[in-house]
Amino acid sequence: MTRNIDLNSDLGEGYGAWKMGDDATMLGIVSSANVACGFHAGDPLTILVTVREAAARGVAVGAHVSYPDRVGFGRRPMDVTHAELAADVIYQIGALQGICASAGTRVSYVKPHGALYNTIATDPRQGAAVIEGIKAVDPGLAMMGLAGTQILRQAAEAGLPTIAEAFADRAYRPDGQLVSRREPGAVLHDPEAVAARMLRLATDGEVEAADGSVLHLHADSICVHGDSPGAVAMAARIREVLLAGGVSIAPAAGGAA
Amino acid sequence: MTRNIDLNSDLGEGYGAWKMGDDATMLGIVSSANVACGFHAGDPLTILVTVREAAARGVAVGAHVSYPDRVGFGRRPMDVTHAELAADVIYQIGALQGICASAGTRVSYVKPHGALYNTIATDPRQGAAVIEGIKAVDPGLAMMGLAGTQILRQAAEAGLPTIAEAFADRAYRPDGQLVSRREPGAVLHDPEAVAARMLRLATDGEVEAADGSVLHLHADSICVHGDSPGAVAMAARIREVLLAGGVSIAPAAGGAA
Amino acid sequence: MTRNIDLNSDLGEGYGAWKMGDDATMLGIVSSANVACGFHAGDPLTILVTVREAAARGVAVGAHVSYPDRVGFGRRPMDVTHAELAADVIYQIGALQGICASAGTRVSYVKPHGALYNTIATDPRQGAAVIEGIKAVDPGLAMMGLAGTQILRQAAEAGLPTIAEAFADRAYRPDGQLVSRREPGAVLHDPEAVAARMLRLATDGEVEAADGSVLHLHADSICVHGDSPGAVAMAARIREVLLAGGVSIAPAAGGAA
Amino acid sequence: MTRNIDLNSDLGEGYGAWKMGDDATMLGIVSSANVACGFHAGDPLTILVTVREAAARGVAVGAHVSYPDRVGFGRRPMDVTHAELAADVIYQIGALQGICASAGTRVSYVKPHGALYNTIATDPRQGAAVIEGIKAVDPGLAMMGLAGTQILRQAAEAGLPTIAEAFADRAYRPDGQLVSRREPGAVLHDPEAVAARMLRLATDGEVEAADGSVLHLHADSICVHGDSPGAVAMAARIREVLLAGGVSIAPAAGGAA
Repeated sequence: MTRNIDLNSDLGEGYGAWKMGDDATMLGIVSSANVACGFHAGDPLTILVTVREAAARGVAVGAHVSYPDRVGFGRRPMDVTHAELAADVIYQIGALQGICASAGTRVSYVKPHGALYNTIATDPRQGAAVIEGIKAVDPGLAMMGLAGTQILRQAAEAGLPTIAEAFADRAYRPDGQLVSRREPGAVLHDPEAVAARMLRLATDGEVEAADGSVLHLHADSICVHGDSPGAVAMAARIREVLLAGGVSIAPAAGGAA
Repeated sequence: MTRNIDLNSDLGEGYGAWKMGDDATMLGIVSSANVACGFHAGDPLTILVTVREAAARGVAVGAHVSYPDRVGFGRRPMDVTHAELAADVIYQIGALQGICASAGTRVSYVKPHGALYNTIATDPRQGAAVIEGIKAVDPGLAMMGLAGTQILRQAAEAGLPTIAEAFADRAYRPDGQLVSRREPGAVLHDPEAVAARMLRLATDGEVEAADGSVLHLHADSICVHGDSPGAVAMAARIREVLLAGGVSIAPAAGGAA
Repeated sequence: MTRNIDLNSDLGEGYGAWKMGDDATMLGIVSSANVACGFHAGDPLTILVTVREAAARGVAVGAHVSYPDRVGFGRRPMDVTHAELAADVIYQIGALQGICASAGTRVSYVKPHGALYNTIATDPRQGAAVIEGIKAVDPGLAMMGLAGTQILRQAAEAGLPTIAEAFADRAYRPDGQLVSRREPGAVLHDPEAVAARMLRLATDGEVEAADGSVLHLHADSICVHGDSPGAVAMAARIREVLLAGGVSIAPAAGGAA
Repeated sequence: MTRNIDLNSDLGEGYGAWKMGDDATMLGIVSSANVACGFHAGDPLTILVTVREAAARGVAVGAHVSYPDRVGFGRRPMDVTHAELAADVIYQIGALQGICASAGTRVSYVKPHGALYNTIATDPRQGAAVIEGIKAVDPGLAMMGLAGTQILRQAAEAGLPTIAEAFADRAYRPDGQLVSRREPGAVLHDPEAVAARMLRLATDGEVEAADGSVLHLHADSICVHGDSPGAVAMAARIREVLLAGGVSIAPAAGGAA
């Protein structure tokens, strides 16, 4: 039996003269690119260059929408209103759609970024604003979120396709939540161990939790990082081990038009 | 014989808590709204509110694209590169398309704003970047520009539909150019005189130049302002006089979807 | 016995082409100007024009420091780190000090703005960051805050001079807190009644709470608004009534150099 | 006879999550740090960290003021008004002064950045605005500019101390101007050759021009770069060769308080 899984990564996160990560290399590893839309990172030209390369490689493009907080890189919780947040989501998706149209591809899904991602995992009020924004632009866009969180149920109930993602380099609690970054062992550093975990997740739907118990987890996509040479190497190794294990790597949503 | 002309105005130019102009009233006067896209003015929610109202009234929406200069309101010439400018145009059109999609309308044309508008009237290098950006998103979008300037020829040669506009409250030189704002008499203040000028322009294609000579000018659209109570009153009077003179007022490009 | 009280108002809150409030008129009414520092409002030129006028009229200048959220006008709570917030406060005070130096005056106090003001009224963690920032620039700067809140005690314990302020147009609960804006009657609209309340506050240290009980409140300063013609008229009336009642109006801290 | 020269470099040019250059290493090489003030680069916390380290090492701090163009990194010419530019300069110097006060040091000089640097080298109108801004804050601040350009004469005539700087890695024309970056050979890459050139400049006031002729050039400071490992190595080698050649390296203006 063939299994498919998506590999996604945050890309296009430079801003003007500032670079972040190795987009060109990562686009040879992942099947889906979460592309910054200008609110936490990504000026139009940086976004365009990233999207063009994604299109050339058949990598699906997702809108990595954020709170409007460039200096904080979208990592700081903000208490925005429903109307503000919905409009911010619409604007960002639209901007990326324009860039995608110019590059011969399209936006396939939406992945909220940083503090917004974390907030809507548990706050249905902000979640509802994000969902409203997505549906208002295109109800065919999928919502990517953390596997097992309420935002995915909320999005599904609202009629959006969903993509459940796991984090390759993060430890899990037995209840399926991520171990907090403030706790020891929250982040995994051994590429071989991480790659083996992700193969098991992709083939058997299982991941070992921090206490040694086995956690059943459905994931459509695996999030990998490209913000350091070590991260890129880990991502590459995950890809290799998945392919060697008989797992196909393909976008969870859409793909290039 | 019935004549048609478009009335356009710059709208959506608030930013967060700051307001500018009386959009609601102006949307009852004009047939086309040049809507700010966030680079000189217009946050997503302000833009969305303006676009919804435009859609409700059947007013066509144009992308009022700008240099990225909010503090300068896009009024300061900037020496941007071709690649930066094209990407900035693509991003802004896309963002407004997203907003329009959410409001059940669409972007029909592009009108560069402020310093960019003035620059491309005479600088084919920046003009080419704007044209490239428009075509990359949608070659069916019309370019609105000052009647008689090279940017309209350049856009037409590149295959874009064009909209030539006249300014209701500006004096013209005999050669068809606007009298510089630094010269006396550049801006006209009498609503009746302005309305009569615009009726003559719409019906006969003529406007009296500053030296009293008659200038032949083809205009598809007339730009009116809404940034003061006096400006709104003048715009309303122009509309009345045009209609009373048998001129139909309708978008030059598109209109609500 | 002569009583003194300060009248303060938020000024310099335009941004580029956008105006807010009637600074020129308000500077003839108040003794202290809380001047925006660029993070929620205020571009350098707008700030400079306001500060020059304040200096010319002998109005004291305070730094109206904010979260970095221009599109949200600093009104949205943000979960910033201690280090970020302290540095943001330092930067904003310094910028305003530079403007003041160029105008022949100086910064006399600091009043956090909007969501930051509300947050530090009850959150000693963010309060500590603001206090640290102020002390790092100049421990002689006073902290202005809501009369009766912990931030003033926290600032005093840290060695900063403090200015307790009351809000002219807000109803008070019997415990000295403001009635929430979400409740009816939170905002008072009758200039005569408000002026009489403020005279009683200035002379007797008493204000009638929403339930009719008498609240004892020590206030060094009264905050008045200038964001509408009605607000300006109310501020002017408060000034008249205070002066007629034998109250001197003078800055609580500093004043022009 | 002992010769003194200053080594300066552009520092503090990160922004939030984005890093640029190796400030910590460069602060062990240079005697003067041109610190970004937030308009082209530098958020408050990044600036503060850089200034604290400069203070700890006795490195003088200069205000690296810029046009307000973060996405363009201050590299794009902008046609700003006199009043806007003067206010922008005042605001930026003040902000850095606040940061310096909190770190126990002070701003000693002002070096315009990027496009502003290049513009005022030849445009006395914008030059006058920068000079006005500097004098308005503190007429004791020195103006750093390209050796031999009119802006230094203009600043001196206005009563400002001046610092003439040479660029270590740039080729010179026989008339003392830099070879344009668009011409071959404009940038020098050999650390040994560059270090030897700078020693000759520091000791004899001579530099070999691109055509082989000898150019007499008075420089108070030498600008070195830290934006790549190669640049840092070149800067370190210049320092070594200068010291070995008997040249003292010390700030041209001020130094830590």
